[in-house]
Amino acid sequence: MVSFAGPIAHLLDELGRLPGIGPKSAQRLAFYLLERPQEEVERLAAAMVEARRKVRRCVICCDWTDQEVCAICQDPRRESSLICVVEHPKDVRALEKTGQYRGRYHVLHGSLSPLEGIGPEDLTFPQLRKRLEGGEVEELIVATDPDMEGEATAFELARLARPYGVKVTRLARGLPEGADLDYADDSTLRLALEGRREI
Amino acid sequence: MVSFAGPIAHLLDELGRLPGIGPKSAQRLAFYLLERPQEEVERLAAAMVEARRKVRRCVICCDWTDQEVCAICQDPRRESSLICVVEHPKDVRALEKTGQYRGRYHVLHGSLSPLEGIGPEDLTFPQLRKRLEGGEVEELIVATDPDMEGEATAFELARLARPYGVKVTRLARGLPEGADLDYADDSTLRLALEGRREI
Repeated sequence: MVSFAGPIAHLLDELGRLPGIGPKSAQRLAFYLLERPQEEVERLAAAMVEARRKVRRCVICCDWTDQEVCAICQDPRRESSLICVVEHPKDVRALEKTGQYRGRYHVLHGSLSPLEGIGPEDLTFPQLRKRLEGGEVEELIVATDPDMEGEATAFELARLARPYGVKVTRLARGLPEGADLDYADDSTLRLALEGRREI
Repeated sequence: MVSFAGPIAHLLDELGRLPGIGPKSAQRLAFYLLERPQEEVERLAAAMVEARRKVRRCVICCDWTDQEVCAICQDPRRESSLICVVEHPKDVRALEKTGQYRGRYHVLHGSLSPLEGIGPEDLTFPQLRKRLEGGEVEELIVATDPDMEGEATAFELARLARPYGVKVTRLARGLPEGADLDYADDSTLRLALEGRREI
């Protein structure tokens, strides 16, 4: 096999570190970039470096922002008594896409994982505590992932909120829209039965 | 929906231009980069710019190289009487992986496409003609893709080679290794029948 050397090998190596980019995708991206005008490649490279340099966590909700306080936390029309707690910045985008939610967010940047040694202090629990201490929050909507780590994190969030008399809710579990009933797994069906509502 | 502004929007926009990277993948990559150490992002950005700046086409075979002449064209152990013509640099890698080929290559950087206005002069036909004029080449193995453009390109390559008395061959068509006979399409089965060999 042609062992790439020098700058091509180096580029393939760097691209291959990206999540979801295997050797084949890295090669496809590298060869694509080699075919593009120099300025275009420089623009992409600059966009990466600039974003990494300027973007930081919002001092209130810990979501990504290029300002001190993010757009949602700055928005006076968003209800400040309602905080939806998510694991990742991408979850904020997913919830905003529904157009249904008018409260605020808190981004944990991960979930609790005793096995990996990730405790509340490694996430943004301290920042959330500070918000709860502010006294304005009435409900915490826990929107962590419906998996083991997400459940453990939800449990810990409920414990954190208790002393402040804040109501803690969890996103409903059940059948996903558009799914076939007979393709749903046992656990989902069980939760859908438990959570049944009168129509 | 949270409309990203500033550096995040710019990064998402630039990443979204890459082939095979949709909005969701762009977001995943962007958020991944934001979590990485600054130096790591700078290293990736520098690798892109450096590769684009230093890598060019080999003056003989037109494959990517960071030198005047690529490693294969420089290698005296490769048969110079045999040239395998491929559409893209990635095809060279695919053939080299077989470990079976000891000749040289010629990379066209595309295929003929009258519909898109791509003629022989837009590809590296002129450079190939120069190699044929050298008189050392005895066989041209056409390894263009088995599709319409690839076939048209193969036909044109045969025409180019004729005046030089060079033998032109095409990679065998037939059933791919490990495939189920009944899943093969009609055209592949027809070619497999036509190309049958005594065992």
